[in-house]
Amino acid sequence: MKSYTEYLWFNTSKKREFINITDKVEASLRKSRISEGFCLVNAMHITASVFINDNEKGLHSDFEKWLEEYMPHEPLSRYRHNLTGEDNADAHLKRTIMGREVIIAVTKGELDFGPWEQVFYGEFDGCRKKKVIVKIIGE
Amino acid sequence: MKSYTEYLWFNTSKKREFINITDKVEASLRKSRISEGFCLVNAMHITASVFINDNEKGLHSDFEKWLEEYMPHEPLSRYRHNLTGEDNADAHLKRTIMGREVIIAVTKGELDFGPWEQVFYGEFDGCRKKKVIVKIIGE
Amino acid sequence: MKSYTEYLWFNTSKKREFINITDKVEASLRKSRISEGFCLVNAMHITASVFINDNEKGLHSDFEKWLEEYMPHEPLSRYRHNLTGEDNADAHLKRTIMGREVIIAVTKGELDFGPWEQVFYGEFDGCRKKKVIVKIIGE
Repeated sequence: MKSYTEYLWFNTSKKREFINITDKVEASLRKSRISEGFCLVNAMHITASVFINDNEKGLHSDFEKWLEEYMPHEPLSRYRHNLTGEDNADAHLKRTIMGREVIIAVTKGELDFGPWEQVFYGEFDGCRKKKVIVKIIGE
Repeated sequence: MKSYTEYLWFNTSKKREFINITDKVEASLRKSRISEGFCLVNAMHITASVFINDNEKGLHSDFEKWLEEYMPHEPLSRYRHNLTGEDNADAHLKRTIMGREVIIAVTKGELDFGPWEQVFYGEFDGCRKKKVIVKIIGE
Repeated sequence: MKSYTEYLWFNTSKKREFINITDKVEASLRKSRISEGFCLVNAMHITASVFINDNEKGLHSDFEKWLEEYMPHEPLSRYRHNLTGEDNADAHLKRTIMGREVIIAVTKGELDFGPWEQVFYGEFDGCRKKKVIVKIIGE
């Protein structure tokens, strides 16, 4: 069994942002030289997400609006977590909905995706450096 | 390390439907001849889900009602994604809640399930052909 | 490829409870003697969850309040599932939001975690014995 590990760094200019990282994951896969196995991609911070969905800006703004409707950033006093001095309780909830991780099948050296699947990094408390791990195991 | 890959096809007669696919996943596992490892099952389309829960019709209608309450299909104008000509923005959101994928432990040649765990395909924008991948790695 | 399987048992004194199980998962990893691979941790019951987030009590009470707001335990008649004689339909929904499973990268013999990642068992219908599987594959 082979394994390959790579870390991707992000520092978004906005508090909330979705970034298409499909190319980066594919680049990691090529470097791994693994042709059959599993590829794990996960946010290593608990106010960020990795998820798979459509690369369509309208949909991303729908996600943003929907998350803000049911777990709004403000009022900060809505959340006990913010009593710690943080203001990011909503980001913990948003990341829970969008998901921490994805596992992608690797088949014949490619990410085994359906026609519209793309991998995104979802930032919910940005403007600081955060890390994503890509780890591939297989043969 | 061995690996085994199989694709399952679905074409539901209803727009939204939950289908128990536990038997199909078990059949894939038998064909793989893998006794210790991980089994990944994921929807390859971004308006469908694979999830594990109870095989109980009342619960499935509770899921349906709950998803429709917080991410309704209509009005279509609620979602910017639908400006693309699609009418399935709600299906992208519903699948996000229900999940894209599951990983099941394989132990002694069996899906290592608790007493009530069953695998379901969740369709949120049906009446067309869609694919699920079952990929098992191990020994 | 090596694999290691361990089952953790829980019997909470409260109906709903979050338990930090990071130490237990790390203990399983040490016993596995696996240094590169994937670690799967999942609830084997469909009204419980395994998830990764912050070890902060205020945040946990925010999760609790938020889940209860959008999928309340009562009135029991809100859910068709409860017509079966169960009273735990809300627990099935809550576990869906919080997630059944996590996959953790194993690198150099450690859980490859970001600075604040901790693993939790989330109980939504407690006061009875339930099981979690920890399965590690790799080398």
